[in-house]
Amino acid sequence: MTYDERPLAISAPEPRTLDLIFTDEARKLLHAKYQIIEADPENIAGLGDGVLAMARYIIGQPPLSAGTVARMPELRCVLNVESNLINNMPYEILFQRGIHVVTTGQVFAEPVAEIGLGFALSLARDIIDQDLAFRRGRELWGGEGNASSRLIAGSEIGIIGFGDLGKALRRVLCGFRATIRVFDPWLPRSILEEHGVEAASLREVLTESDFVFVVAAVTSENKQFLNAEAFASMRPGSAFILLSRADVVDFDALMAAVASGHIVAASDVYPEEPLPLDHPVRSLKGFIRSAHRAGALDSAFKKMGDMVLEDMDLMDRGLPPMRCKRAERETVSRMRSKGVKIN
Amino acid sequence: MTYDERPLAISAPEPRTLDLIFTDEARKLLHAKYQIIEADPENIAGLGDGVLAMARYIIGQPPLSAGTVARMPELRCVLNVESNLINNMPYEILFQRGIHVVTTGQVFAEPVAEIGLGFALSLARDIIDQDLAFRRGRELWGGEGNASSRLIAGSEIGIIGFGDLGKALRRVLCGFRATIRVFDPWLPRSILEEHGVEAASLREVLTESDFVFVVAAVTSENKQFLNAEAFASMRPGSAFILLSRADVVDFDALMAAVASGHIVAASDVYPEEPLPLDHPVRSLKGFIRSAHRAGALDSAFKKMGDMVLEDMDLMDRGLPPMRCKRAERETVSRMRSKGVKIN
Amino acid sequence: MTYDERPLAISAPEPRTLDLIFTDEARKLLHAKYQIIEADPENIAGLGDGVLAMARYIIGQPPLSAGTVARMPELRCVLNVESNLINNMPYEILFQRGIHVVTTGQVFAEPVAEIGLGFALSLARDIIDQDLAFRRGRELWGGEGNASSRLIAGSEIGIIGFGDLGKALRRVLCGFRATIRVFDPWLPRSILEEHGVEAASLREVLTESDFVFVVAAVTSENKQFLNAEAFASMRPGSAFILLSRADVVDFDALMAAVASGHIVAASDVYPEEPLPLDHPVRSLKGFIRSAHRAGALDSAFKKMGDMVLEDMDLMDRGLPPMRCKRAERETVSRMRSKGVKIN
Amino acid sequence: MTYDERPLAISAPEPRTLDLIFTDEARKLLHAKYQIIEADPENIAGLGDGVLAMARYIIGQPPLSAGTVARMPELRCVLNVESNLINNMPYEILFQRGIHVVTTGQVFAEPVAEIGLGFALSLARDIIDQDLAFRRGRELWGGEGNASSRLIAGSEIGIIGFGDLGKALRRVLCGFRATIRVFDPWLPRSILEEHGVEAASLREVLTESDFVFVVAAVTSENKQFLNAEAFASMRPGSAFILLSRADVVDFDALMAAVASGHIVAASDVYPEEPLPLDHPVRSLKGFIRSAHRAGALDSAFKKMGDMVLEDMDLMDRGLPPMRCKRAERETVSRMRSKGVKIN
Repeated sequence: MTYDERPLAISAPEPRTLDLIFTDEARKLLHAKYQIIEADPENIAGLGDGVLAMARYIIGQPPLSAGTVARMPELRCVLNVESNLINNMPYEILFQRGIHVVTTGQVFAEPVAEIGLGFALSLARDIIDQDLAFRRGRELWGGEGNASSRLIAGSEIGIIGFGDLGKALRRVLCGFRATIRVFDPWLPRSILEEHGVEAASLREVLTESDFVFVVAAVTSENKQFLNAEAFASMRPGSAFILLSRADVVDFDALMAAVASGHIVAASDVYPEEPLPLDHPVRSLKGFIRSAHRAGALDSAFKKMGDMVLEDMDLMDRGLPPMRCKRAERETVSRMRSKGVKIN
Repeated sequence: MTYDERPLAISAPEPRTLDLIFTDEARKLLHAKYQIIEADPENIAGLGDGVLAMARYIIGQPPLSAGTVARMPELRCVLNVESNLINNMPYEILFQRGIHVVTTGQVFAEPVAEIGLGFALSLARDIIDQDLAFRRGRELWGGEGNASSRLIAGSEIGIIGFGDLGKALRRVLCGFRATIRVFDPWLPRSILEEHGVEAASLREVLTESDFVFVVAAVTSENKQFLNAEAFASMRPGSAFILLSRADVVDFDALMAAVASGHIVAASDVYPEEPLPLDHPVRSLKGFIRSAHRAGALDSAFKKMGDMVLEDMDLMDRGLPPMRCKRAERETVSRMRSKGVKIN
Repeated sequence: MTYDERPLAISAPEPRTLDLIFTDEARKLLHAKYQIIEADPENIAGLGDGVLAMARYIIGQPPLSAGTVARMPELRCVLNVESNLINNMPYEILFQRGIHVVTTGQVFAEPVAEIGLGFALSLARDIIDQDLAFRRGRELWGGEGNASSRLIAGSEIGIIGFGDLGKALRRVLCGFRATIRVFDPWLPRSILEEHGVEAASLREVLTESDFVFVVAAVTSENKQFLNAEAFASMRPGSAFILLSRADVVDFDALMAAVASGHIVAASDVYPEEPLPLDHPVRSLKGFIRSAHRAGALDSAFKKMGDMVLEDMDLMDRGLPPMRCKRAERETVSRMRSKGVKIN
Repeated sequence: MTYDERPLAISAPEPRTLDLIFTDEARKLLHAKYQIIEADPENIAGLGDGVLAMARYIIGQPPLSAGTVARMPELRCVLNVESNLINNMPYEILFQRGIHVVTTGQVFAEPVAEIGLGFALSLARDIIDQDLAFRRGRELWGGEGNASSRLIAGSEIGIIGFGDLGKALRRVLCGFRATIRVFDPWLPRSILEEHGVEAASLREVLTESDFVFVVAAVTSENKQFLNAEAFASMRPGSAFILLSRADVVDFDALMAAVASGHIVAASDVYPEEPLPLDHPVRSLKGFIRSAHRAGALDSAFKKMGDMVLEDMDLMDRGLPPMRCKRAERETVSRMRSKGVKIN
């Protein structure tokens, strides 16, 4: 390698690409400020000591062995733009050395919150089926078409999980004067209160809500914690809106609860993705389907690149990253989301 | 009539009923505080001088002649629960005498704003057609299903008309960090600014918005002011959401603008209601249909009764009504909405 | 008079002047749009039929007889820039004819709310006396100087009166997560709730508040309604902040309550203004004194002119005034504030 | 030691005491959940291996040698309730081992923000000197007393430093419709924007503000960065409010800028504390003095205990602390605040 005074960053953003996550302008800035080495994520070790010795950043989440990490004395941060954390690098060693591992999933918070509110309003006002009825000439006019309609204003809302998605949901709900209760066992009560929501138990959230939003990450401990019993405890006619990962839900039990008419629901995620053509959720009444597209907006992907640039700028100046979310020693091994295959 | 010390109110709320607009509890309070005379709205004059001489309130909007009004020396207020003002009473005489004419349409503001936001989110994220595709096994996963998706957050929003509906819209939009421009020629600029929106011309609202909400009342001056030229001036791909009355729009031009792919749209109102089965809007792509059901929630109707009781309480104490909206001498004759036939 | 197609406005803003209430720019606009006749307020009748017959507006609150009003067929509005309503014109006749009487006191809401919050913070944190102690070398450092300090955040706040001033207070308090209770017998409970405050009785406001703000107008019914008994019912150590008019308070009882150490207080208004040099409030500990200067900012006066112009513009177009506050038939005769002598 | 299944915490909170930072109720909970070993902070090493081997938490900031830390295999967190970080423990080793060091200074954010706003309102409206004039019979009435008065509403505000204090300031300012610009080189622009403030350079903040609040921590790099040149660049008549540490300011230059009449100011902190009796700031006009009491409220100290308990509860469950602020590897050595001597 020839000498280059720009800090060196290894680029291995698969399954994403630099083109997906950077605007043209941001991409130019990236290249102006950094020497970018495009790497095969499956072979970081093969980059050679010249590159490894100088690399300050890795953009992406390539598999890394302890040995490879040992060859990277200047490494400050792994900037994971896939958002899920895969257990493919020696996190403990990274943390010992003070190398940050950060994720950019926050970019999805706003789009997910917006479509989540869209689902809630569609369920509350039966927007989809009334439009279909209208297309077919079977619409009901005025109050007659509002048999099951209700307001979000003044309602009771439950949010399960209060990370970036939960906070974004609270924000889009701020104009509705609703009571918002949150279940998040990873956060202390007072932090929830500072965000203007009530800390609550899972049971309270389920039994006292008109709308329940699920934005909890999957962990090694919460697989299918939302099961038949949970759905049975919900208010009749209430709405269940699943926005994070299907693994937190017993999906069959969810479908059964909707099929019985006890609740209505919307989901962006499924036990299998793509879903078999004959899956019964396709024809389930009282259910809004969305094909894992809640967050995947181009504008969200482009924001990833901005976040990466902002945090690299801080770290270049010897400061800690503040924009992306840092993986935590205590919880990194508990995260269990599958990686995405489709952006 | 026998002596009754409760103030007397004539009840003629057609096409609504006291049962529709009062909860059981509110209805009990109404009867406890007031002597209620149920009247044929077409024959208020026939009630007899005993009743007319003592009547303090009329609940409803029955036709009244100047002669009848002259027989009602104690009349303080006509509480119109139909919401539209019909030109069927001598407003000028009422105003001269200081008799208030109030409407309760404000109850619809919150439900209309919520479904309006629901339409906007459905259009922005293609919620309806993506659900339909999913039902049919033709869904697109992840970013592939988001070709035309966009956020409300950070967008530019136009609101045409800033009465109760416009204000309620602003409220439900407060979590979206959007720029909101308002065109309302009946309001001074500084009042709009106090509400945190920008005063704008109609042209600015049309040309600089990603979402345009129409909540303007029909007046004698604004019939079909939203015409082909107006739609052509809108941003390509922007959304037009009609929530007030169809008469402010050239509906054929609106359909043409959507059919051409220039804009997408949603509407709760139509040139004819009910609409003929063969009306082309029924099969128009890029259009969300709702059968004049935006405001007609039971909870909204019940709020009318609460408002009527609150204002009668104020007037009983010699105070002006503050809850309902007062008809204004200057504008009462300009209002041109048709009465509702169906609640 | 020679012919002038500009609408005619009679200017008699005493004790204020056009220079006080209009910026240079607004003044130019006023003269560009209107033919302004400067009049002796004591002799409007002497203006001559030429002027009276054409006058559309009166800026000010000059005495008007029924006979003079009868000579003014084009009169649309009396724009009272003195803010208090004096009983010096035939209001009933004006209202019958649909002539508006509007006041511009709203301009004082923001300045009054800000100084009110300043008083509250000074009382809560003892800002004044700690600064004086510091000047004298007797300051107490750290927690030792905070014996009586407390937060507004999370406190309970009472507001008496919820007109423009009360609403402005609520606004500047919005960042404090306080519980706000309002007593205002002229407003229905639901309007208060829509503003995010709790409707409460006077007793609740007095007994359950850490800070009580008084922004109620004086009426014929509420003279000295805040008396010894009221102060005795307040929480020990709570703060009483008087911002509207001294007549709503038994001032001697207020001073006694402060002198006894039961409460602390601040006031902008006094039973006599100016106040005798030997008045005991001058040396009262636990009391912040302000010489009727809460609202009298130059920027507030200049806003009056802007409001007048905005409403005249609406009325020129046949619309009702929306910016200034309209006097109400029911309450105009109940208002009892004295006029100001000093701006 | 006898066996105790409660986790062990070493208590060495000097200069604070457990009584100061825990309410009775919280103190009971602390003892119920944890075995508390009260320790001489100067002799943690002397506690004996029995205690050190089992200690999960240290409450306080006692000097720790690498050797002592090595004897504490179970240590999860040092909960520093003194708020300033002193360089008296081997941070690098702690961080390598994943032992958190957290501070509780956030408790002061709300009290500091409130008194800071109190200073701003006092300066803007001359509350202190007008009260003093009133005491002496020299008050000016109405507008005459408002020569230099101005509003915070609609003003331009600068905040230097956007940690907990800056965020709390933004919150109490949210009702004022002010433009808020923030200079904080440790935060990326987009985070500031998400908080609804504008990212700005130091120069912009100084030259374009009516009120400048300084809540920046002292670091090894910013000593006296607010100097004569900085004050000279401020708007004439603007207000400078110092709330963090005196070391960020050239205090003599600040006094000179106030003495010249160029700006007004308030300060809670001083180059020496306590301050000599003959220090010229004691008699400086246009300056509000407060004796390092902005944060030191009993309610703030008590909140420390609550935060400590909440974070220990999270860490007991294997989760990272979320309530207190974590020291960062990158910045811990840059922090240069002196410890407090008086609470």
